[in-house]
Amino acid sequence: MAEKYVIGMDYGTDSARAILVNARTGEQLATSVKYYPRWAEGKYCNPAKNRYRQHPLDYIEVLEASVKECLAMSPADVAENVIGIAFDTTGSTPVFTDEEGTPLALLPEFAENPNAMFVLWKDHTAVKEAAEINALAKRWEIDYTAYCGGVYSSEWYWSKALHILREDEQVRGAAYSIVEHCEWMPALLTGVKRAKDIVRSRCACGHKAMWHAKWGGLPSEEFLTALDPLLSGFRDRLFTDTFTADVPVGHLTEEWAKRLGLTTDVVVAGGAFDCHMGAVGAGIEPYTMVRVIGTSTCDIMVASYEEMGDKLIAGICGQVDGSVIPGMIGLEAGQSAFGDVYAWFKRVLEFPLHRIVSQSTLLDEETKKKLIRETVNRIIPALTAEAEKLTDNGSTLVATDWMNGRRTPFANQELTGTITGLTLGSLAPQIFKALVEATAFGSKAIVEQMRKEGVRIDNIIAIGGIPLKSPFVMQTLCDVLNMPIKVCRTEQACALGAAMFAATAAGFYKRVEDAQAAMNPGFDREYAPDAANAEKYAGLYKQYLEIGNFTENILTKH
Amino acid sequence: MAEKYVIGMDYGTDSARAILVNARTGEQLATSVKYYPRWAEGKYCNPAKNRYRQHPLDYIEVLEASVKECLAMSPADVAENVIGIAFDTTGSTPVFTDEEGTPLALLPEFAENPNAMFVLWKDHTAVKEAAEINALAKRWEIDYTAYCGGVYSSEWYWSKALHILREDEQVRGAAYSIVEHCEWMPALLTGVKRAKDIVRSRCACGHKAMWHAKWGGLPSEEFLTALDPLLSGFRDRLFTDTFTADVPVGHLTEEWAKRLGLTTDVVVAGGAFDCHMGAVGAGIEPYTMVRVIGTSTCDIMVASYEEMGDKLIAGICGQVDGSVIPGMIGLEAGQSAFGDVYAWFKRVLEFPLHRIVSQSTLLDEETKKKLIRETVNRIIPALTAEAEKLTDNGSTLVATDWMNGRRTPFANQELTGTITGLTLGSLAPQIFKALVEATAFGSKAIVEQMRKEGVRIDNIIAIGGIPLKSPFVMQTLCDVLNMPIKVCRTEQACALGAAMFAATAAGFYKRVEDAQAAMNPGFDREYAPDAANAEKYAGLYKQYLEIGNFTENILTKH
Repeated sequence: MAEKYVIGMDYGTDSARAILVNARTGEQLATSVKYYPRWAEGKYCNPAKNRYRQHPLDYIEVLEASVKECLAMSPADVAENVIGIAFDTTGSTPVFTDEEGTPLALLPEFAENPNAMFVLWKDHTAVKEAAEINALAKRWEIDYTAYCGGVYSSEWYWSKALHILREDEQVRGAAYSIVEHCEWMPALLTGVKRAKDIVRSRCACGHKAMWHAKWGGLPSEEFLTALDPLLSGFRDRLFTDTFTADVPVGHLTEEWAKRLGLTTDVVVAGGAFDCHMGAVGAGIEPYTMVRVIGTSTCDIMVASYEEMGDKLIAGICGQVDGSVIPGMIGLEAGQSAFGDVYAWFKRVLEFPLHRIVSQSTLLDEETKKKLIRETVNRIIPALTAEAEKLTDNGSTLVATDWMNGRRTPFANQELTGTITGLTLGSLAPQIFKALVEATAFGSKAIVEQMRKEGVRIDNIIAIGGIPLKSPFVMQTLCDVLNMPIKVCRTEQACALGAAMFAATAAGFYKRVEDAQAAMNPGFDREYAPDAANAEKYAGLYKQYLEIGNFTENILTKH
Repeated sequence: MAEKYVIGMDYGTDSARAILVNARTGEQLATSVKYYPRWAEGKYCNPAKNRYRQHPLDYIEVLEASVKECLAMSPADVAENVIGIAFDTTGSTPVFTDEEGTPLALLPEFAENPNAMFVLWKDHTAVKEAAEINALAKRWEIDYTAYCGGVYSSEWYWSKALHILREDEQVRGAAYSIVEHCEWMPALLTGVKRAKDIVRSRCACGHKAMWHAKWGGLPSEEFLTALDPLLSGFRDRLFTDTFTADVPVGHLTEEWAKRLGLTTDVVVAGGAFDCHMGAVGAGIEPYTMVRVIGTSTCDIMVASYEEMGDKLIAGICGQVDGSVIPGMIGLEAGQSAFGDVYAWFKRVLEFPLHRIVSQSTLLDEETKKKLIRETVNRIIPALTAEAEKLTDNGSTLVATDWMNGRRTPFANQELTGTITGLTLGSLAPQIFKALVEATAFGSKAIVEQMRKEGVRIDNIIAIGGIPLKSPFVMQTLCDVLNMPIKVCRTEQACALGAAMFAATAAGFYKRVEDAQAAMNPGFDREYAPDAANAEKYAGLYKQYLEIGNFTENILTKH
């Protein structure tokens, strides 16, 4: 019998990648990365106003190109043996559709209207609407924000929808339904003809749309219209049920089978957000936290319904039944800045390059540019090399990691970072080391908060750029957490997670856990905590908490 | 009648400068700066052990060279019309002498023994002895440290004397008396033949030797021998009385008149420490604080005995009757780091230059060296230029200035610096601005402590390198203190102050205040506080105090 294959498609912020995977072994036959063409030109965005929009055609074009490229890189008989495809995307990244479920920007009259496009997760145009939602939720009989961390964000579904309805009369007139990017991809490929028929993602709706079975689905019509009468009628036109991503949405239409070079036997799985599918791809299971570590972190856990019951975990980003592994509660937390803290310090150190070296008359312009570029690129590696050499030197430095606010535990975007213990001997490597420790302390604060709420955490799996690039950061994190950390081998954990859902939806596996067991990518490296360092860091962590408490409760009162 | 002239001689850490001044007008005819030859070679010092010693021949050689150079630069009839000379030096910088008052290092058998030389103010070899003195003083019936700030330093007289007596048997056998540098110069030039006859400086003895009229001079023999029997007998051989620097010590001996090219009519005034005479040179008077602002600060005030009475000013470095202006109480305070805080941040920013640019293969070695040197030299000017452009930008940054510990208020060398309010937008200019504000807040803490203790302060006179170089720092300081600041015009305020004492001791003026009125150098610039900034800084200063309180009382408990 021929081998069977699945495709995992991961839509990130700037690009999408398709991977073609052997469904039985998880072997990756081909990967293709494609950048969004309109987005790359800066179209429809206004960074000064934090407006970030993506055109649905960008999504369609990279899908075709990357799937076809994967097939072209594989043996000829693979295409006919592809049995499933699944999508993960950023989120909350919603768009308004017409009654047929078509994103408005695909209609000729809305083709160039940013309000008719997908509103990317990091779009912050709806700050005011988020504040109104929070205010109303706190005085409503039901706190609809309870399962998404107790604080609704401007980055989410209802904030964005309301903002656009208020701002754009033309869109308001045409808007029938709202769909998340991860829901629209399966709907598109399976030929859904009515917005009502779009299969809704448990992950997206539970985390971002305040959907929960406990209150019968979405927030009540009364709540929504109290927020703004402009929302009137949407609830009925949207959805009642949501589905986990292992549930098949349908098969490829003839048109899409042709466009992608596949067959109409291909099963399309439900969609979910990138970190959630990434956690599956990396091997999440109960008591293991999967951390996607890059500029910020996204921390995912799963817990059985038996263990968690109805308990609300205070201080995290959200908890949604089935958002990660079907049948288990998915928990999400994260740090607002991780690698961004190091990048910030790098930018501080770049000052003499940009302001003095760049003005020097000693070098020609070309050499200066090269020298500055070369130097900037080597700052973090050089800091790392020096920081690694620092033995336990009686350093008094302790820092907090809130240079971009704090997402968890207990979101507070107003918070700022602190460095204490500075002496005339605290030079760049010492400060960098303290910042690495600070980001690890921020991680520990999340772990400790979850433990305090009764969530057992035994070990960590790390995915993302930093875990594969920086043993110094990972060993520090391991020592601070005093827990083993495994680094996922693949750089494509999200797409691989999607492939696992594709294989499950296609019936190749009964459960996602079976797909994980068979298709797991293994680990690049395992870190074990150093007992002496762990003890030292336990002491420094107390200081971290005290500094945090001071800056949060005393200083910000001014 | 011919014009009369005086010479002020200022002995600093690395060099001495002589100025030749018209006694009637204060006009500076000539200045000569000479570096200590042995010291410049690094002789007798061990920076790794914080051992810093200076050979008396260094002092003698620069004296001859600089006075002669001044005379050579002046009209021919000036030499015969020089009527006085006075000395200020660093301190506490004591040396052991024999019975004749000769520093031991001038005897052939001690010529190369660092323990027989002057122990420079910044020598920290006597940390243990200082701790013993503090411990004993606190349990003694009289707290002899009361007038020198309540904490005795390893940089001072008795700590250093005891340390050397313990360490060096040969010196111990020959040591008869102890003399401060500022006392030895007048004794040398006036031909003192017995250690007993050396005229003792009120400034030096009151601030550093625990001398006070209230307890009959030096600490009791019982106290000193309880400290260590090695000190037995010194008290009787030392002195009972001390004198202000306006009191003539004598005339130049024939030998010294010849060596310097002057007459034996020249009156030699008493000696004092550099900042104290610098305060006089800059125009100190009651209610005016004179601040010598460089890497650290030395802050001097005078108050009438009527106003001060016997009151102890808590938290400052010392208070001595006549240490600045005869007949008034001199008060001394200071910050452990001021310019050193900026220099530290500069060193942090130098990292990419020394660690990356220096390794680049894009440039030849010569160009790299030049580029790095040029860039390093321009960091603080470039930071200043950028920081000046920052409007009140909603910055959340607040820092403390304790990167080198805290000298006043309330000495605590264990303290460290903090920067709070860091965001991803806090780049080098923003941080530099916060550090400049932090050093100004440290200044305000001294002013406020003095005011709390009943000392009236209306305005500031600033001397030293930073006040003449950095309008940005001075305007920030002015706004934070919310007081006018005048910057002394001369760079040689200390030597000019010595010249004022020379003119007074020579009888040209009755009182030092008269010399100040006639010989004052005027001001380079006056800063007036900006009301809006002053108000803003009043709020930030509260945060500075809270951060300081937190790091001092909570964090350092670990």
